[in-house]
Amino acid sequence: MNKMQSNFSISVIGAGNVAHSLVPALLSKGYLIDYVFARNPQHAATFAKKFDIKCTDNLNDLTGDIVIMAVTDSAIEQISVKLAMQSNQVIVHTAGSQPIDVIAKYHKHAGVLYPLQTFSAQRKVNFKHVPVLIETNSDYAKKQLSDVANKISTSVLQVNSYERLQIHTAAVFVCNFTNLMYTYGKDILDNYNLPFEVLRPLIKETAEKALSNDPVNVQTGPAIRNDEATLTKHINQLDADMAQKYEQLSNWIKKRHS
Amino acid sequence: MNKMQSNFSISVIGAGNVAHSLVPALLSKGYLIDYVFARNPQHAATFAKKFDIKCTDNLNDLTGDIVIMAVTDSAIEQISVKLAMQSNQVIVHTAGSQPIDVIAKYHKHAGVLYPLQTFSAQRKVNFKHVPVLIETNSDYAKKQLSDVANKISTSVLQVNSYERLQIHTAAVFVCNFTNLMYTYGKDILDNYNLPFEVLRPLIKETAEKALSNDPVNVQTGPAIRNDEATLTKHINQLDADMAQKYEQLSNWIKKRHS
Repeated sequence: MNKMQSNFSISVIGAGNVAHSLVPALLSKGYLIDYVFARNPQHAATFAKKFDIKCTDNLNDLTGDIVIMAVTDSAIEQISVKLAMQSNQVIVHTAGSQPIDVIAKYHKHAGVLYPLQTFSAQRKVNFKHVPVLIETNSDYAKKQLSDVANKISTSVLQVNSYERLQIHTAAVFVCNFTNLMYTYGKDILDNYNLPFEVLRPLIKETAEKALSNDPVNVQTGPAIRNDEATLTKHINQLDADMAQKYEQLSNWIKKRHS
Repeated sequence: MNKMQSNFSISVIGAGNVAHSLVPALLSKGYLIDYVFARNPQHAATFAKKFDIKCTDNLNDLTGDIVIMAVTDSAIEQISVKLAMQSNQVIVHTAGSQPIDVIAKYHKHAGVLYPLQTFSAQRKVNFKHVPVLIETNSDYAKKQLSDVANKISTSVLQVNSYERLQIHTAAVFVCNFTNLMYTYGKDILDNYNLPFEVLRPLIKETAEKALSNDPVNVQTGPAIRNDEATLTKHINQLDADMAQKYEQLSNWIKKRHS
């Protein structure tokens, strides 16, 4: 852990899910937040009030050693262009699939701080356990951004833009596609007014197995056993659309384990 | 909770993953296990030694108020036919997708005790938190099996064979297909020697969200946002086979949330 610099401060652009997780993590480590800016000034004002910080509707006001953009991917380059270059200010984005270049081509000190987690308004996440992937284009940016990342997270990894894109893609499988499988499970039970609660211990155990094993070694179920009788039973009582999905996914398991 | 009957005892057929979880749960609640039988006598002997119970290679030896078959689906009916009918013995199977009829047509007192969990040899599961789905064909079987189920689990649900088949199908989605998504996540990282550890907090948080929410309400990611730029970026750098899977799964998310 690095000692905090005196007068070190940060401005934040964005008032969405990532900013809602990142700003309290920064504040809790004693960082000064100079300003928050958001495209919608009302959102910035609400956000600023919530965390007792200042807001501005002028990008030129954004002082601080680091300016962190927690904005939608397509806005990163637009904002990057508009930001006035200040000597030694490190301009950072937080996106998984955007290369550092979208900032680095406009700024001497550029960085990426990508928190690898799913953030929703309704859930508070303990940032300490969120893996943070960082990338920088200068030694100065590296020093500044590493200090911040290591303060707010115990799991900081330096990766380049291409590696970060791979990790972001893998994250879609283990998070977004997984949640789709949970949704389908609930859909099937809803059809018969059966309680989703009955599946929750299974969801928990399946995740916990993956937390301590290589998932390929703990695959279970009728597809990996080539248990055609059970596969047919399941498929026969699903509606046509879900039956097709079930068959497709089962074939993928067979292929992965053949 | 019901008071345990004096001299109440159980025999178990099978020495696989389910028996390995069920037998210690029964023993820990003070149930007497008369015998364990397995198709492979060596497996039965090893199992019996492990849990300090007796084994037999003769189905006719299986005394006890309840005989629980923890065997592969296709063996249930074959064994059911062979089991000598004893007055008031309740014959039970533990399968998710097999109707009670495969036993009930041969036995006056039949039942199903389906533990809804993924069991692997390498992981110990606390049976108390495993949902147990039960079904019976007589009041006597219902009384006997309910007593046992409520002793070993805090979550006992009475469902008919068709409902159990639905739940078993839903379980395949939230467990087996989910684990496939974890496997794909690891496959992508392995290609670039990136550590799977970086994805584990995300797997944990995604499951925990589903434990306290309706999963349809906590879906995140580029597909639900119709973020075509990110979808294209991810697809473009996957190999052809994984790219096709990514696109298919993303389309399913779009369709589910349209």
